[in-house]
Amino acid sequence: MTHPTLSLDEVVHQRVRLGILSILAEEQQADFSYLRTTLGLTDGNLSGHLRVLEDAGYVRIAKLFENRRPRTRVTRTASGLEAFDAELAALQKLFARLDFVELG
Amino acid sequence: MTHPTLSLDEVVHQRVRLGILSILAEEQQADFSYLRTTLGLTDGNLSGHLRVLEDAGYVRIAKLFENRRPRTRVTRTASGLEAFDAELAALQKLFARLDFVELG
Repeated sequence: MTHPTLSLDEVVHQRVRLGILSILAEEQQADFSYLRTTLGLTDGNLSGHLRVLEDAGYVRIAKLFENRRPRTRVTRTASGLEAFDAELAALQKLFARLDFVELG
Repeated sequence: MTHPTLSLDEVVHQRVRLGILSILAEEQQADFSYLRTTLGLTDGNLSGHLRVLEDAGYVRIAKLFENRRPRTRVTRTASGLEAFDAELAALQKLFARLDFVELG
């Protein structure tokens, strides 16, 4: 049997990106500023991770104006949600495996 | 409420290191070659990740000879197990949070 961590996708698994995708799983879309605050990131750090997710086709990013104020809206794609679900499934396999052993 | 991914420790959360610590949670100690095979890694890749874990005080590494053959034995430390447990607890909080929303 292959180890469950072998099926983790590093694009999704990375801590900050896991946070982004988890928020987008809950909300479908979120503003850049909301993600930045909720995940405690700098602009540059969040931008970098969004670019990785965008390159993988897991999010779409739109710049728009609302009441003349610029907003950056991040929306998950179908394959982004799929990848997030696969991550959760792999983590659940890891948990299931650990249930058979006593830790400590 | 802070987002659960904020309490993930990147030293532990990183995919390969999560695999190493999860095996050591099951087995307490493991040979370098066992880890390499089970996690599908190269020598260099495994060494690099072990160094990160050793620097954090999460594993101890001993080189020894058994029947004149060299072996590298990796043992988890108490704080390594603690850090792994904290990772699992943070992931479980993430799961709990997602249980309140319908994905898809």
